[in-house]
Amino acid sequence: MIYLDNAATTKPSESAFARATAFAMDKYYNPSALYAEGYALQGELKKARSALLCKIADEASFELVFTSCGTEADNHAIFSFAKRGNAVTTAGEHSAVLSAFAELKNRGIAEPRIAPLEKDGRVNVEKLLALVDEKTTFVSVMQVNNEVGAINDINKIAKLVKAKNPRVIFHSDGVQGYGKIPFRLAKEVDLYSVSAHKIGGLKGVGALIKRKSLVLPPYIIGGGQESGRRSGTENVFGIKQFEYATEEKFSTIREDFERIRAYRELLWSLLDKEIFTRLSGEDGTPYILSVSALGLRGETLLHMANDKGLIIGTGSACSSNAKRRYSKVVLACGYDEKTADGVLRLSFSHKTTEEEVKRSAEILNEVGQDLRRRMK
Amino acid sequence: MIYLDNAATTKPSESAFARATAFAMDKYYNPSALYAEGYALQGELKKARSALLCKIADEASFELVFTSCGTEADNHAIFSFAKRGNAVTTAGEHSAVLSAFAELKNRGIAEPRIAPLEKDGRVNVEKLLALVDEKTTFVSVMQVNNEVGAINDINKIAKLVKAKNPRVIFHSDGVQGYGKIPFRLAKEVDLYSVSAHKIGGLKGVGALIKRKSLVLPPYIIGGGQESGRRSGTENVFGIKQFEYATEEKFSTIREDFERIRAYRELLWSLLDKEIFTRLSGEDGTPYILSVSALGLRGETLLHMANDKGLIIGTGSACSSNAKRRYSKVVLACGYDEKTADGVLRLSFSHKTTEEEVKRSAEILNEVGQDLRRRMK
Repeated sequence: MIYLDNAATTKPSESAFARATAFAMDKYYNPSALYAEGYALQGELKKARSALLCKIADEASFELVFTSCGTEADNHAIFSFAKRGNAVTTAGEHSAVLSAFAELKNRGIAEPRIAPLEKDGRVNVEKLLALVDEKTTFVSVMQVNNEVGAINDINKIAKLVKAKNPRVIFHSDGVQGYGKIPFRLAKEVDLYSVSAHKIGGLKGVGALIKRKSLVLPPYIIGGGQESGRRSGTENVFGIKQFEYATEEKFSTIREDFERIRAYRELLWSLLDKEIFTRLSGEDGTPYILSVSALGLRGETLLHMANDKGLIIGTGSACSSNAKRRYSKVVLACGYDEKTADGVLRLSFSHKTTEEEVKRSAEILNEVGQDLRRRMK
Repeated sequence: MIYLDNAATTKPSESAFARATAFAMDKYYNPSALYAEGYALQGELKKARSALLCKIADEASFELVFTSCGTEADNHAIFSFAKRGNAVTTAGEHSAVLSAFAELKNRGIAEPRIAPLEKDGRVNVEKLLALVDEKTTFVSVMQVNNEVGAINDINKIAKLVKAKNPRVIFHSDGVQGYGKIPFRLAKEVDLYSVSAHKIGGLKGVGALIKRKSLVLPPYIIGGGQESGRRSGTENVFGIKQFEYATEEKFSTIREDFERIRAYRELLWSLLDKEIFTRLSGEDGTPYILSVSALGLRGETLLHMANDKGLIIGTGSACSSNAKRRYSKVVLACGYDEKTADGVLRLSFSHKTTEEEVKRSAEILNEVGQDLRRRMK
């Protein structure tokens, strides 16, 4: 099978898994324990924290709190800081952000304001800024859109937002950016969410990176782990596997970025333009190519491709449960329902090979042509 | 090393880990994906849910929501149902419950009421019931105390609470009971929290068992996983490892219960009564023997035992972070600070052997006698 649904989840790094297994089976102690074997794990967690953080931020200004997933990190940020007045986000956000914003309204905590998108999926920065006023407490803008791959320049947007209202807490969902897009956090970004399983880590591990001087109340309360910010016995094995997978991923982040961008363009160049329209802009993440097979159902093509050995996505895997017929993000980009219905998301990992890209194009063209003939 | 700190965390089952590894490395798909490989994982999650649930509850009346840990399950229950009026719990609870109850007060959500303990660590049921009135919305009583091992008859207590106020939502933290104490949930228990890593599962996995007819709002919001009750990509590997470890644990739960009870009594019989006083009652969980070395510091004995190859605890590992000098639970049982200062928690797993028990007693007597001599 060729796997091009890496934006949904990636295969965990085998070497990181093998290396981390010692923390599951031998060093299985509770890191809060007083004896040497337990206490030593605090050092291991510290190492992991530092390794994950230093890749994108200045350790003097930022720190990292482990969570159980990107969704928890997003919720933690939003429910901690979106208070009174209004909170601003974008129409392109993952449901972990958009659903939490809807809750802000349901619970009467804050008025949610949603900024529209450009055609390529980036937020319209001018319109976002127009929503920010003196009553805005919180702004959340994702770094990389998980459906079409558009990249928002979050450092620049954070600066502009703070220039308009310096009291705003600025958060970014970095789940599709961390370990894929070379960049460093500007000091204007207060909070940044990451997830392990999008870059070779395991499901069940994430982190919330935060400006050190920002006081973060806990969202899960108990034994006081993570300096009181996230209680619950630490998932040492998952965290160490995340650390090792991240070390691997960042060691080639720039080469991967260039090579995968070439693959994305290669894939696009090989696709039958009679069938497929491109939604992803060239400036988006190399790791996602979103296309639409106009007049065909993306879901049908997904199953046909699957039968031929190619695994792809249609939109956000996480929203499949919600039984949403059309991708809200694609509609928010300004496309019609027919385009949204034909969407295929082809997403790469740094392990994707040129052969896989070429074979994927063949399969996609075959199934597109096949379904088209049947529709006539 | 002999490991007698199994109430803090247990060594994961190697066979369960080996069996579940396929779900990390081969079947690494996103369970929300539409293609066969992803969708099949929904079936695997369903199997796990059923396997974990049927061991203690009627599947027609109860269901199970996966969480990232016992603490999240406790928080989820408390913050979902402790509303307006007052909420009642016990002085013996884990900090995941007690800290959340303190937050109910801080946030002005509900008045927390704390029922006192009997000398052996069980809640004083009469006094608990006296705290329940027509304004009580929520009651939380732990099944097995994690420090002294006392067992509360939660089924009976839930019935009594509901007889007094049938609108109360009754929750129990079952983290130290699930897989160790043979029992089945009565219909009066609405919510029950469990954790994987206390019975051979991995850290980072827990569950909240709930009465089916109870509407549980989500605590972590997003893609709508777990039927909308707990968003975030499912930790399939961790969940399957939990399933397999639980199958193993329950397959011998009754024999283990009897054997470990005999070991607990054997250990107590071998301990030097000039030094050690027993805090755990005979009716408590077999898996925990709490003793106090009067006039000696438990923490010092812990380090001395560690040097001789024995790992033990002093109280709750989770509260070590909080730098609490004395166990609040032991004080709540009515012991003085001197007793609380000398507490050692010796906790077994079903893998503990008789040889380990005998050698542990020798080491404990040696270090106790040694420290006593030095104190003179």
